[in-house]
Amino acid sequence: MARYDFASDNTAPVAPEAMAALARVNSGFSAGYGADEHSRAAADLVRAFLDADAEVRFVASGTAANAVALAALCQPFEAVLAHDHAHVRTDETGAPGLFGHGLGLTPLSGASGRIDPASLADAMAAGEASNRQPAAALSLSNATEYGSVYSTEILSALSGAAKAKGLGVHLDGARLANAAASGFDVKAIAAAGVDILVLGGTKAGMPPSEALVLFDRALARRLDQRLKQAGQLPSKGRYYAAPFIGMLEDGALLRHAAHANAMARRLAEHQPFRVNHPVEANAVFVEMDKPRLAALTAKGWAAYRFLDGSVRFMCSWATTADSVDTLVADLQALA
Amino acid sequence: MARYDFASDNTAPVAPEAMAALARVNSGFSAGYGADEHSRAAADLVRAFLDADAEVRFVASGTAANAVALAALCQPFEAVLAHDHAHVRTDETGAPGLFGHGLGLTPLSGASGRIDPASLADAMAAGEASNRQPAAALSLSNATEYGSVYSTEILSALSGAAKAKGLGVHLDGARLANAAASGFDVKAIAAAGVDILVLGGTKAGMPPSEALVLFDRALARRLDQRLKQAGQLPSKGRYYAAPFIGMLEDGALLRHAAHANAMARRLAEHQPFRVNHPVEANAVFVEMDKPRLAALTAKGWAAYRFLDGSVRFMCSWATTADSVDTLVADLQALA
Amino acid sequence: MARYDFASDNTAPVAPEAMAALARVNSGFSAGYGADEHSRAAADLVRAFLDADAEVRFVASGTAANAVALAALCQPFEAVLAHDHAHVRTDETGAPGLFGHGLGLTPLSGASGRIDPASLADAMAAGEASNRQPAAALSLSNATEYGSVYSTEILSALSGAAKAKGLGVHLDGARLANAAASGFDVKAIAAAGVDILVLGGTKAGMPPSEALVLFDRALARRLDQRLKQAGQLPSKGRYYAAPFIGMLEDGALLRHAAHANAMARRLAEHQPFRVNHPVEANAVFVEMDKPRLAALTAKGWAAYRFLDGSVRFMCSWATTADSVDTLVADLQALA
Amino acid sequence: MARYDFASDNTAPVAPEAMAALARVNSGFSAGYGADEHSRAAADLVRAFLDADAEVRFVASGTAANAVALAALCQPFEAVLAHDHAHVRTDETGAPGLFGHGLGLTPLSGASGRIDPASLADAMAAGEASNRQPAAALSLSNATEYGSVYSTEILSALSGAAKAKGLGVHLDGARLANAAASGFDVKAIAAAGVDILVLGGTKAGMPPSEALVLFDRALARRLDQRLKQAGQLPSKGRYYAAPFIGMLEDGALLRHAAHANAMARRLAEHQPFRVNHPVEANAVFVEMDKPRLAALTAKGWAAYRFLDGSVRFMCSWATTADSVDTLVADLQALA
Repeated sequence: MARYDFASDNTAPVAPEAMAALARVNSGFSAGYGADEHSRAAADLVRAFLDADAEVRFVASGTAANAVALAALCQPFEAVLAHDHAHVRTDETGAPGLFGHGLGLTPLSGASGRIDPASLADAMAAGEASNRQPAAALSLSNATEYGSVYSTEILSALSGAAKAKGLGVHLDGARLANAAASGFDVKAIAAAGVDILVLGGTKAGMPPSEALVLFDRALARRLDQRLKQAGQLPSKGRYYAAPFIGMLEDGALLRHAAHANAMARRLAEHQPFRVNHPVEANAVFVEMDKPRLAALTAKGWAAYRFLDGSVRFMCSWATTADSVDTLVADLQALA
Repeated sequence: MARYDFASDNTAPVAPEAMAALARVNSGFSAGYGADEHSRAAADLVRAFLDADAEVRFVASGTAANAVALAALCQPFEAVLAHDHAHVRTDETGAPGLFGHGLGLTPLSGASGRIDPASLADAMAAGEASNRQPAAALSLSNATEYGSVYSTEILSALSGAAKAKGLGVHLDGARLANAAASGFDVKAIAAAGVDILVLGGTKAGMPPSEALVLFDRALARRLDQRLKQAGQLPSKGRYYAAPFIGMLEDGALLRHAAHANAMARRLAEHQPFRVNHPVEANAVFVEMDKPRLAALTAKGWAAYRFLDGSVRFMCSWATTADSVDTLVADLQALA
Repeated sequence: MARYDFASDNTAPVAPEAMAALARVNSGFSAGYGADEHSRAAADLVRAFLDADAEVRFVASGTAANAVALAALCQPFEAVLAHDHAHVRTDETGAPGLFGHGLGLTPLSGASGRIDPASLADAMAAGEASNRQPAAALSLSNATEYGSVYSTEILSALSGAAKAKGLGVHLDGARLANAAASGFDVKAIAAAGVDILVLGGTKAGMPPSEALVLFDRALARRLDQRLKQAGQLPSKGRYYAAPFIGMLEDGALLRHAAHANAMARRLAEHQPFRVNHPVEANAVFVEMDKPRLAALTAKGWAAYRFLDGSVRFMCSWATTADSVDTLVADLQALA
Repeated sequence: MARYDFASDNTAPVAPEAMAALARVNSGFSAGYGADEHSRAAADLVRAFLDADAEVRFVASGTAANAVALAALCQPFEAVLAHDHAHVRTDETGAPGLFGHGLGLTPLSGASGRIDPASLADAMAAGEASNRQPAAALSLSNATEYGSVYSTEILSALSGAAKAKGLGVHLDGARLANAAASGFDVKAIAAAGVDILVLGGTKAGMPPSEALVLFDRALARRLDQRLKQAGQLPSKGRYYAAPFIGMLEDGALLRHAAHANAMARRLAEHQPFRVNHPVEANAVFVEMDKPRLAALTAKGWAAYRFLDGSVRFMCSWATTADSVDTLVADLQALA
């Protein structure tokens, strides 16, 4: 029997606060398509969490939410600037191209998943020509794919530089809770000029649910039609809103993220392999050769080699210290 | 306070069997993206329900599932034949065109939402020309948008006629449970030549979940990539599979649908307005003028005027005889 | 040997003025992608012809030009209002849906291809709902598909009504020359609020070439990239610009169109069948049964039955009075 | 006054053989949409040139032809393998993504624009996962973007390797004439397993025209509809066919290409800068710093820095030995 504890943060079950909220909203008849009271309440909690005015919708898929966001910021004959290894470039099977009708995704460089400001500046300084897709937006992720976290200042500087050039800004917040628990100030996102945030629920311990947050109300024109056409306007909206209510109303979102981050640090500190990226959120990337990964897999642990060659271990709200210690012991036996 | 009891069948809460199944799968770590044991168990139950071999996936959105299905059966420069008032033509904000990259949706006619076989024959007899999108597929719905139900024989004949001309066949089964409870034999779908079925969960009493069923395995090549790109390959697949387990393992799906159908008949029989379509599933369409609809709305009942001019009332698993009788009384006061 | 004289206005050869201009630009090396002096000269002539400031590009395909124009005016989750039998709805194999990523094309009604103002008003008065594609633009054609011509006043009124509701306006001018020769004032187009005009060259006697005219400069942002991605930014732009130079510099465009219109009137007046639409441009639509059309075809004349059931005859710059008289004699023998 | 002689091979005028053919077809009425006798004659000449059976169409745009070809070989959730600097990846403003609805373009490596067989093998050996677009086709170019030419054997080996893995194969032949004049055997293309060839006319000295050649007739199902929707089914098809007649019937295509190649060799041999890529076709890429390129531009020569940092000079059928010598003298003065 494979153990998926560290395979991803989406292999975890749903946190009790989210399950309880699901049960709570499950009575009586409700207006459909997000027009219900629970969707309103959840949107209020998201706005309070971010300390910002915004249009908020709850959708099923982070992949679709990111793709719809990029399509709202970028024409098909333009391009989005994103880290070479950003999730939107490498792990969504081309969803931005489908929902964005062929929009380009221009790679930027930077260590450990963080965009190097010089790489962004270079890309924005490139001249426009009719045979290339010019930049229309910047896509950021926090926490990044490699478990590093942008500081509030750096993310604001990147976003501000893009805004100054007239670009839109998207923030993939699939693991924003982990970034927040690591010190990133989510209340600074709006002021940083981010136009659209996808605030992740799924990897934070909810059943599949993501909040699409549009700080720029003009972008929200006919948003319900946009989402409906994209298959992301759920008729029974309360079941996507409820988890956010359960996780935001008493701080469970950040509490669970802090736990996941702590488990990642515990793992990083005690396991014996070289750690390839800063452990600032809930991921640990280590240097491991093929035979050792095979041996680990043979012991039942699901773990994946990443684009940079590292082997990744993810922690979540449900990761226990015991399971970390068991994994550490198995890793030490291999090292 | 508006009453949404009859506004749609998606305003109802989740049935207890589905909620219980959600709770049951919510422990431990699971493989992601539908590779978990619960997704396998649910797929087995769907195959048993349909008495057929098929690839089965569980997705969040019926709109997206229909659109992805049509895109799999029809090139952008071809067209799908569908009833003029089919959901895919009138209620999905053009989703088939988005996921299908501009595919056409050629209207067929027929009373009460059922396609007239002569209309299908005419459309298929039309010559091909380079300036028109030729037919590549037929889309059927059972139950139909107007609450009528195709008999097993008629649906098989329509599907067979399309297959004989080389067309693919899609069945929108958002309310297949209601059709089944009305006598339609779901075990005949595969033999009728249907290529792709979308088996509805949401309107049947589940939290948002639909089963995408591909009887033709060749169409399923790289299906996971197709779904992932479309934002319909949920990472935490067990939460879309579980409701199907809960509703199929003990027959709740058909039991609840039979109840909804019975409530519709009760409403149709006792309310005073002219009924415009056969009440064979869970919908009642009545003739009602503007002032009376306004008066009904003023009493708090949410009800919508449909494309054909009728006012629609939907029943669901959660509709009570008491609420039907209350609505009947209010309608009688208006008549 | 089939005679294609009246099959369409695109079966004619290229007018001598256009051929001469092709030869004239064919020397020396030129900048590519429309940046050459001939493209500039042609654009100046188009602006003078329309008495308006505008961005002008020369492209290969009217189908693509219309589709790109609609995509610039309408998001995929919105719809363009157009006459039920408009070319963009019925004769372009769904090109607007491909280039517009699934945008809707909502049909309007009206006799002889002209939109009834009441039909437009009704469509614009419809409420918006998340499950329908709301109107974002109006598409007009002059001359229409049925050879009728909008007066300057009526076209201005339709365009103005659309602009007043915030819609964009597209004018398919594949046969604008014929409309102009029939009295329509092309210098009123810009003032009428039209955002994008496709000024037809091909059917007017040029080799394949159309002018894409954007009166609203804001819509022209990154137009070259938009066209390049759509395969409509010709590298050797001078060969699309030259025909417009040849046909506009000495008035050949209108002169040839007036001839085509006169030939249509001659045909309409002398042939014996009932004429179904006003003969205001270069088309004649007559009532003709199947055996007679078959007999006509057997005599070698290519002619097509149209969507409204009429049989269509088109005249062009190259139509001779002799050929009209020969056709008339053959038609009289059939009547 | 800028001199565009060496800026590209599309800055040249049209060769006399092509102009003469245009004039020759320009009489009488013809069937539209490629059903005319000239289109048939040109298709026969293309088949004879390639010594192969194939569906052949003549279209306006190489960008669109390539994009339509890739869309025919690759689903949106799949990817095309192509050289990192292939024209389809770098110079078509994302057209493959637009016409292919988000299909991926996975980069392969290799010196001087030629794909390294090991890079292809690696890409095809990669495992499939639901979160990545798996390879469905290989795109080759001959001559390449860097003026190198695949030998018949190497191109056949690359194509064969792709076919053995079930991939489709596309050949961008914008400069196939130059490759042929350099020794590549165009009669080996069909046997090599290439499914779709875009045979370039524009850069070879024609007015805008490209031949789309489908060796696999099954791919040609509803090809006219596919092209019409893409804006690439010209109504006046004879004007795209005629240039191919003029250039193929007496061997002008290869004769002109041989001249262009010879001019490139003359330039390469006599100019003083380091040549960065093999001069096997009609391009010369040299190492030149910024001040020298600026000085060259100041002398009126249009020349562009390429993706690899080289400065590119292109020769064409119209390049004269005199102009080469003048450029050489100017370059020597800078060196």
